[in-house]
Amino acid sequence: MVHQKGLVLVISGPSGTGKGSIIKPYMKENPLCRYSVSITTRKPRSEDKNGITYHFKAKEEVEELIRDDGLLEWDSYCGNYYGTPSKFVYDSIAEGYDCILELTVPGALNIRKKIPECVMIFIAPPSIDELQRRIVGRGTEDPHTIEKRMSKSMNELEMIKHYDYVIVNRDVNVAISELSAIVQAEKVKYERSREVLNELGLIQEE
Amino acid sequence: MVHQKGLVLVISGPSGTGKGSIIKPYMKENPLCRYSVSITTRKPRSEDKNGITYHFKAKEEVEELIRDDGLLEWDSYCGNYYGTPSKFVYDSIAEGYDCILELTVPGALNIRKKIPECVMIFIAPPSIDELQRRIVGRGTEDPHTIEKRMSKSMNELEMIKHYDYVIVNRDVNVAISELSAIVQAEKVKYERSREVLNELGLIQEE
Repeated sequence: MVHQKGLVLVISGPSGTGKGSIIKPYMKENPLCRYSVSITTRKPRSEDKNGITYHFKAKEEVEELIRDDGLLEWDSYCGNYYGTPSKFVYDSIAEGYDCILELTVPGALNIRKKIPECVMIFIAPPSIDELQRRIVGRGTEDPHTIEKRMSKSMNELEMIKHYDYVIVNRDVNVAISELSAIVQAEKVKYERSREVLNELGLIQEE
Repeated sequence: MVHQKGLVLVISGPSGTGKGSIIKPYMKENPLCRYSVSITTRKPRSEDKNGITYHFKAKEEVEELIRDDGLLEWDSYCGNYYGTPSKFVYDSIAEGYDCILELTVPGALNIRKKIPECVMIFIAPPSIDELQRRIVGRGTEDPHTIEKRMSKSMNELEMIKHYDYVIVNRDVNVAISELSAIVQAEKVKYERSREVLNELGLIQEE
């Protein structure tokens, strides 16, 4: 019996749009979905858990992975590497698990090049004002940091057009149900169903 | 406040795949969805209800509609016209209603030419054997009619590749939920959300 490959779900969106509050409950409801944990060479902070927030690696290990084509995408930021290990993603989808990759916009665009059939989802705030409120609302940042965050978010919003779907996060439950709908609909797309339809004898392919 | 245009949902599938048993309950749950009733020049039968099974029209009326480009698609079969009135579909989607068009494969392909952004959904039987069982199971048909129906169905299955989505109707409740997911996912596609995202100030379009 042929089973369908899992989906590569690439999710981006400015900080403060509530990506985590959508992804976490979604994954709880969907045990056939896995989360791709990035690797990094930055030092772990007190709130970090190795293998959960990041896989913490030595610089040499990451450079070896890069050389061996072991990363689907990678970037360096403030002198540290960040990247997505290929093996976890490819193994997961081959076993029929969907795999969520929470990535920056450049990271997401790199995945599309490597895995054109990935599903790209942008989580957007309900408005620019609301985005600013959420960034300011965290309360711990100085005006300069807030301004930097806003400008970064505005740059990210300009890249929405590269995404397949945009979930506007007005209500987290609606947003979760939209994510579920996207996954369910993508699985019954003709292009993704060909192997299964062939197995059922409904289409004839070589 | 900009509202999003409704979707044109084109649904096809061989007879005996249970299109009606998916569409009817779906529409009950979704009052913002309308059903496009075809026009025909064939004589009403005892079970027909004008305006529900078909809009029954005189030949001259239909020919006038054809001349005035009042039909999205039309065909003639056994000397009678069948067609889809444009106005109902265009009015519905402009008002934000989704509109279901249950059509033969050639009819569906004609809609795609006129409304490229329509969503084409094929309802398939779980297997060829099951399709045959369902066609035979109706019990009223002679072997010749059954054979004709099967051959028509097989021809329709060959056109699956022109559809965006394929719902394999193994379980009617799953099939209804897949239809709902397709509709919900299509509405958050970037390409369909541009006007709304622009209104929210999240993207800038001229």
